[in-house]
Amino acid sequence: MCGMNQYQNISPLDFRYRVPELEPYFTEEAGMKYQIMVEVAIAKVFAKHGICSEDLYEEIKREAPKVTVEEIYEEDKKTKHTPRAMVNCIQKRVSKEARRFVHLTATSSDVYDTANAMRLRDATKNVVLPNLLKLEKQLIKLALQEKDTLQIGRTHGQHAIPITFGFAVSEYVSRLGHALLELSRANDNLKGQLSGATGSYNASSLLFDDPEQFEKEVLAELGLSPASHSTQIVEPEFLVNHTHALTLAFGVIANFVRDMRQLQRTEIGEIGEGFGKKQVGSSTMPHKRNPVTFEHIEGLWKELMPRMMTLYLDQTSEHQRDLSNYSSGRFVFEVAHGLDSAVRRLQSVMANFLVDRKRMKQNFEGSKSTIIAEPLYILLAMAGHPDAHEAVRKLTLKAEKSTHEVLILLAKDRALKTYYEKIPKKKLAILARPEKYIGIASKKTEKVCRFWRKQLKPLET
Amino acid sequence: MCGMNQYQNISPLDFRYRVPELEPYFTEEAGMKYQIMVEVAIAKVFAKHGICSEDLYEEIKREAPKVTVEEIYEEDKKTKHTPRAMVNCIQKRVSKEARRFVHLTATSSDVYDTANAMRLRDATKNVVLPNLLKLEKQLIKLALQEKDTLQIGRTHGQHAIPITFGFAVSEYVSRLGHALLELSRANDNLKGQLSGATGSYNASSLLFDDPEQFEKEVLAELGLSPASHSTQIVEPEFLVNHTHALTLAFGVIANFVRDMRQLQRTEIGEIGEGFGKKQVGSSTMPHKRNPVTFEHIEGLWKELMPRMMTLYLDQTSEHQRDLSNYSSGRFVFEVAHGLDSAVRRLQSVMANFLVDRKRMKQNFEGSKSTIIAEPLYILLAMAGHPDAHEAVRKLTLKAEKSTHEVLILLAKDRALKTYYEKIPKKKLAILARPEKYIGIASKKTEKVCRFWRKQLKPLET
Amino acid sequence: MCGMNQYQNISPLDFRYRVPELEPYFTEEAGMKYQIMVEVAIAKVFAKHGICSEDLYEEIKREAPKVTVEEIYEEDKKTKHTPRAMVNCIQKRVSKEARRFVHLTATSSDVYDTANAMRLRDATKNVVLPNLLKLEKQLIKLALQEKDTLQIGRTHGQHAIPITFGFAVSEYVSRLGHALLELSRANDNLKGQLSGATGSYNASSLLFDDPEQFEKEVLAELGLSPASHSTQIVEPEFLVNHTHALTLAFGVIANFVRDMRQLQRTEIGEIGEGFGKKQVGSSTMPHKRNPVTFEHIEGLWKELMPRMMTLYLDQTSEHQRDLSNYSSGRFVFEVAHGLDSAVRRLQSVMANFLVDRKRMKQNFEGSKSTIIAEPLYILLAMAGHPDAHEAVRKLTLKAEKSTHEVLILLAKDRALKTYYEKIPKKKLAILARPEKYIGIASKKTEKVCRFWRKQLKPLET
Amino acid sequence: MCGMNQYQNISPLDFRYRVPELEPYFTEEAGMKYQIMVEVAIAKVFAKHGICSEDLYEEIKREAPKVTVEEIYEEDKKTKHTPRAMVNCIQKRVSKEARRFVHLTATSSDVYDTANAMRLRDATKNVVLPNLLKLEKQLIKLALQEKDTLQIGRTHGQHAIPITFGFAVSEYVSRLGHALLELSRANDNLKGQLSGATGSYNASSLLFDDPEQFEKEVLAELGLSPASHSTQIVEPEFLVNHTHALTLAFGVIANFVRDMRQLQRTEIGEIGEGFGKKQVGSSTMPHKRNPVTFEHIEGLWKELMPRMMTLYLDQTSEHQRDLSNYSSGRFVFEVAHGLDSAVRRLQSVMANFLVDRKRMKQNFEGSKSTIIAEPLYILLAMAGHPDAHEAVRKLTLKAEKSTHEVLILLAKDRALKTYYEKIPKKKLAILARPEKYIGIASKKTEKVCRFWRKQLKPLET
Repeated sequence: MCGMNQYQNISPLDFRYRVPELEPYFTEEAGMKYQIMVEVAIAKVFAKHGICSEDLYEEIKREAPKVTVEEIYEEDKKTKHTPRAMVNCIQKRVSKEARRFVHLTATSSDVYDTANAMRLRDATKNVVLPNLLKLEKQLIKLALQEKDTLQIGRTHGQHAIPITFGFAVSEYVSRLGHALLELSRANDNLKGQLSGATGSYNASSLLFDDPEQFEKEVLAELGLSPASHSTQIVEPEFLVNHTHALTLAFGVIANFVRDMRQLQRTEIGEIGEGFGKKQVGSSTMPHKRNPVTFEHIEGLWKELMPRMMTLYLDQTSEHQRDLSNYSSGRFVFEVAHGLDSAVRRLQSVMANFLVDRKRMKQNFEGSKSTIIAEPLYILLAMAGHPDAHEAVRKLTLKAEKSTHEVLILLAKDRALKTYYEKIPKKKLAILARPEKYIGIASKKTEKVCRFWRKQLKPLET
Repeated sequence: MCGMNQYQNISPLDFRYRVPELEPYFTEEAGMKYQIMVEVAIAKVFAKHGICSEDLYEEIKREAPKVTVEEIYEEDKKTKHTPRAMVNCIQKRVSKEARRFVHLTATSSDVYDTANAMRLRDATKNVVLPNLLKLEKQLIKLALQEKDTLQIGRTHGQHAIPITFGFAVSEYVSRLGHALLELSRANDNLKGQLSGATGSYNASSLLFDDPEQFEKEVLAELGLSPASHSTQIVEPEFLVNHTHALTLAFGVIANFVRDMRQLQRTEIGEIGEGFGKKQVGSSTMPHKRNPVTFEHIEGLWKELMPRMMTLYLDQTSEHQRDLSNYSSGRFVFEVAHGLDSAVRRLQSVMANFLVDRKRMKQNFEGSKSTIIAEPLYILLAMAGHPDAHEAVRKLTLKAEKSTHEVLILLAKDRALKTYYEKIPKKKLAILARPEKYIGIASKKTEKVCRFWRKQLKPLET
Repeated sequence: MCGMNQYQNISPLDFRYRVPELEPYFTEEAGMKYQIMVEVAIAKVFAKHGICSEDLYEEIKREAPKVTVEEIYEEDKKTKHTPRAMVNCIQKRVSKEARRFVHLTATSSDVYDTANAMRLRDATKNVVLPNLLKLEKQLIKLALQEKDTLQIGRTHGQHAIPITFGFAVSEYVSRLGHALLELSRANDNLKGQLSGATGSYNASSLLFDDPEQFEKEVLAELGLSPASHSTQIVEPEFLVNHTHALTLAFGVIANFVRDMRQLQRTEIGEIGEGFGKKQVGSSTMPHKRNPVTFEHIEGLWKELMPRMMTLYLDQTSEHQRDLSNYSSGRFVFEVAHGLDSAVRRLQSVMANFLVDRKRMKQNFEGSKSTIIAEPLYILLAMAGHPDAHEAVRKLTLKAEKSTHEVLILLAKDRALKTYYEKIPKKKLAILARPEKYIGIASKKTEKVCRFWRKQLKPLET
Repeated sequence: MCGMNQYQNISPLDFRYRVPELEPYFTEEAGMKYQIMVEVAIAKVFAKHGICSEDLYEEIKREAPKVTVEEIYEEDKKTKHTPRAMVNCIQKRVSKEARRFVHLTATSSDVYDTANAMRLRDATKNVVLPNLLKLEKQLIKLALQEKDTLQIGRTHGQHAIPITFGFAVSEYVSRLGHALLELSRANDNLKGQLSGATGSYNASSLLFDDPEQFEKEVLAELGLSPASHSTQIVEPEFLVNHTHALTLAFGVIANFVRDMRQLQRTEIGEIGEGFGKKQVGSSTMPHKRNPVTFEHIEGLWKELMPRMMTLYLDQTSEHQRDLSNYSSGRFVFEVAHGLDSAVRRLQSVMANFLVDRKRMKQNFEGSKSTIIAEPLYILLAMAGHPDAHEAVRKLTLKAEKSTHEVLILLAKDRALKTYYEKIPKKKLAILARPEKYIGIASKKTEKVCRFWRKQLKPLET
């Protein structure tokens, strides 16, 4: 299969969206390396307890990592049982004396599930989470930078009342921050096992009085701990939670990029992806500047989010396990991989993110006159008007049909006059300068950024 | 619409799977009651800060709960905006003076999202979680009762090595316990808000210097707190996490019932649903005893589990909110409702759960002779055999083709003799009595039950 | 349970989104009526073949429909088997002689699955499909009406090249038309059965030499036919296809409403939902006009689309059936119900659909000057320029940085001059009047509308 | 990236489940080849209409296929627009004169979507469908071979009434047959396009009076036709239908393998996967024979079935297209790939499928005595008993508690005697030999197999 290149692959994750930094964790080859680590850890604890000699352990530790994935798959042609093939390959490389201690008392799943938990944990800790944290920092930076940039708030795609662009970005600081805490927690909760064929430690009980202690020590070597119970497989919920946390974070990012590509619409034009000099927007319309990265990320989310269904389906495994999660379980790394690929692309856009403050101002100006409806109704109510909302609603409808603005109609309205006059001058100012009607947008932006910076500090290594 | 009965409904959750205990939380009528509670709490904090008088608050508190859902929907014909209709109805019931303080500074979503968080929280705390805890206790009871009941462990639907039935049940004690902790945590994390039309406190800033403090106090009245940020809507992730936790628990239960209905198969017959005296198994086969409850529950899981997709989709809402989560969000209680309905049915089966220990023994006996393959290979390895697994594999194949059992063939095998003789007598006993080869199944069952009893203690009120 | 009203329901489909026209098909009560029809049809064919007398059939035909759903559920308390309860209730109402012919040879699923196929078929044929066809006609009307209305085409949310608004609408004419053909086909393919407890006609073989003929005749009475095989249940794929077709149509509609609510954005403003006089846009911002119906429909789609997962999961039923599709199967009508509810709302918006042609023109004008990039590159290429795309791309970038428009820069460009001069005058006109660069948008709109009107003709009854 | 091997991939579809026969369709390299075919076809029709000379077409036809995927991705580093990069690479290889005709009037999506439809169509037609048909034949063969093999029918996992194993298999013949017709139909319906940047033929209108004719001719060269409308992209529903048909077929197969692995349970043992001589069942339990292929296939189904969600999500694309389906759309081939991989594995099991007729007989014998409940109730009813079902239900309960069989209790029952004596002798025989109570199982099996052989004939090439 050599001479093979990435374009001879089918999965976009193996060419277009490939993340080289994740190869040490997620390739099939990496999987084997991790399984071998588990086998070595078992031998180590055997030696510690005098089951085998230190020398034999040292031999296993030295020889096992030499086993190649090619060797294993060659052996697999015979065994049709890859984990056994791996054991056979290690055994072939060590002395007759050491051979029998390889994999002793373990069942394949002990090694396989434990290795997979390690792979996912290490990839998350070393690559995925740091990248997400880097993105979070870019969001914080952008939020703070634009904390005072006036933007019209939008609900239902309609102009509502003003905010600042930084405040809008701080939404994502907060939501992504929350999702990252969840992810970190789920990552710390991934579990391993060494409980034998049915989870009841039958085999290891032949060697140890306290086989749970044996399990604990092996897992500790690998930085893991056991769940409160296992069958032949680790309880699936820890992995389900982990993928859920990844999906949760992806959902936040999907919302962010959808927002951004909407703000990049020609008619809105408030933000933009930076664009390479020779980059082509369209193969036939040379003038186009498209939010391709934002769109690309939303597409990856649509592809990977539904995979949670597979995780939920894999919660059911008959009795002490059926194997129907074995093939589906092999795809589980793709969610983390795809998310990381998306995050990397987004980072590069964030590093070159265009904000058009002038355009934001212009867009706001267009709705300036109607924006005051809300503060007006509240100020009238505070001034004693019993049905201020309804009164302002009618005034607005009237303004729509006339050439006059709300404020002018207001001034002319006798019924409202008494209340209008009671509004404190200072408050009235906001009706004249609706760009001041932004609540605590700026202060809140700062607060959110400060809060999440602090909350996420412990996640950085 | 009166004279209506439950059979004139379309959703099975409104007739067949209806849970009357959940009506105070999940009906449309209940929704309105909760929204009114939020409006009252707002008035209360107004009074506290002197925005309105205590008397006006008392009036609102007294009159608002009198508003009926019928009134609201009558008003809604005009407004086509149910939350506004609700506000109008309250306003109609109070004095001119009080009227203007109703809903003042709040946007519909403030009230709606906060009320929904309360509904879900209360239903979970008062009904769903207690029911799940009751089920957990039934599982613990069953596990402890059967902790020494010999059962053949099964992987791939094939006899593997022995466990005890209590140990098998303790798998579900552990997994459900874990899911309940998640659910409890997610329930405590549901959030409310009172941050105005775009989340930036524009309106409440007109009344309060510290509008976040105002929000906090109102939410505190309702037993909630705000998230670190909100737009027009509460950050969706808290609800997504809550539904995920429900789905996680449902997945564990789905696995349990699938296991049980498999064990109830005619050929296995190890357990059974109790059966009413006049209950009919089949409309045409009068002799049938079917695991209908187990099947029923698996069906509800298949219906409700995919709804997580809707939750994930509702993570994306454009800018300060689009309303596309409004109709989908109305279905969100169904997951909790359906789970609770399933749990109730399962409880009644658990209360009348049949265990056929004799049949378990018989099933074990059928595989007795091959079970020893595993301990044999380990004991031979411990005795120095370098390729014990392979040697035993061949021995097993040989036994399959001969009329002799593995132990007899073993005794005759010269190559194995040397190793065989080295096995300590005490260990050899297990080969003769494979029913003793159950590892720490019994002890582990106790430990798991003890652990989860303690862990879940704080969840009981 | 009387005194109950719709607000005491939990499912939004039983109150807010309830469609009274669907009650004769989708309520639990309706389900019982349909099952009774199946029982009557069985008796009819018995009489036809002389198994029972015509008189007994007439008695069953007369008495069976008198059975009420309340009676059945009363009986169900004993049997805990609703279909049997229904049979018992019929039997109680008829003479001793007739009693034994009720349900004879049938298994519950024969009656249940057949009745459900009828319910779905009738609801689709009488309500859902006609409503969708009505919507299709509204789309056709709108498309034809706006076939010449200039609109800027948008890809990636960016202005691309011009089309007409009618052409944009004709996209949905075409896609919805296609989906409706699929739905009609799936509806005609729903199947019934009368093949007994395991699908092998064991029971009916005791009465008939050709039990398949018996099945065919009963189903023919009900307007159905059998599949090529059945177990205890009808092959699930016919229902899966039906729900898929509903989901497919819903997806088209979801795309339409998302497009429309984007076009209703404040900054775009090309179309709008009509708005009631007293309708409230926001409880706090009296000036808002929100695309609430479009949003509402997208939400229903997000809720119902993932339910296809349940249908796919229900494809697997162990051996001659497990019952795990029984509870999930009860929810299956909700997809049709929710779609119909959405379509009704959309119809009312379509009846009052606002098109702002002036705004469309304005939006086009904004991009007028860059639009010519595409025709320019093609005309230059036709005139012999070997790298026209690249040349125009550079020209566009230049224009962006200068105050001059592309056409002016073009006139000044020496390298392009030779090619430019070769472009036929008639073609050059398009560069000066880019609003003419709409291809065959108008003609195509007509063609699409004509085509689908004709294609869908046979679906109207 | 050379020296790379399949184990350095992440997607299991690129190593473990890789199908070399699908490489000509589904790799990235294959994608480029197909896109080049589209570009060549465009040039061909240009020549046909005298837009370019025959010589220039011949040049493009000769040179374009020489472009390598490596070249394209090298160019892509500049353009960041792969389809444009591909066009550039072709242009570099041809004369200045030919260059301008490459891709002229086409937009990237025209080429991309058309090429993808071709890839999926060819892979389905040449590989996936033929493999499924081969599987269907294996099922037919097995069904016919076992058409008279007595097996106990099972509903709810409980013994019901007897069928034959061939009849059970014929269920899958029928369901898979149906799904294959759907797949073939969906495959024939895949569409291409050449309608320009917004689907309104703006660019091609500059060259052709009837640009739809131009489109038709190009697509005809590639064996495709256009849909009734397109935007920048082909209407998504054709692809959704195609993936639905694949998923539908996969669901049938998933049900089959679940059934089979249940029948392979130790306690049932009616069928089995053949097993290689050196194959290892368990790394620690050398005696195990597991249904690993059946499990494996169910796992792949769990992984790929939820991907339909992505297809449904990709139905919505804003206006004349957003690009959010571009990344998700790249994964679409994986469903077909994974299904084909599963089918191949299943074929090899089917070729070596073990049926244990003796065991089937034994399992039947165990329930022999209760099976007669159904025919007994029908015969008593036919003999005039008005409440035969209830009478037999009681008799069965009695038999359960006594040591006597139903038939003996029946003989002793005075109330039933009168009816019992009226049953024709010939019919009574079935009560004594319940193995004859199999309805038309055998005949129906033949009929189903004959029917589907004929129906599927036209699908074979």
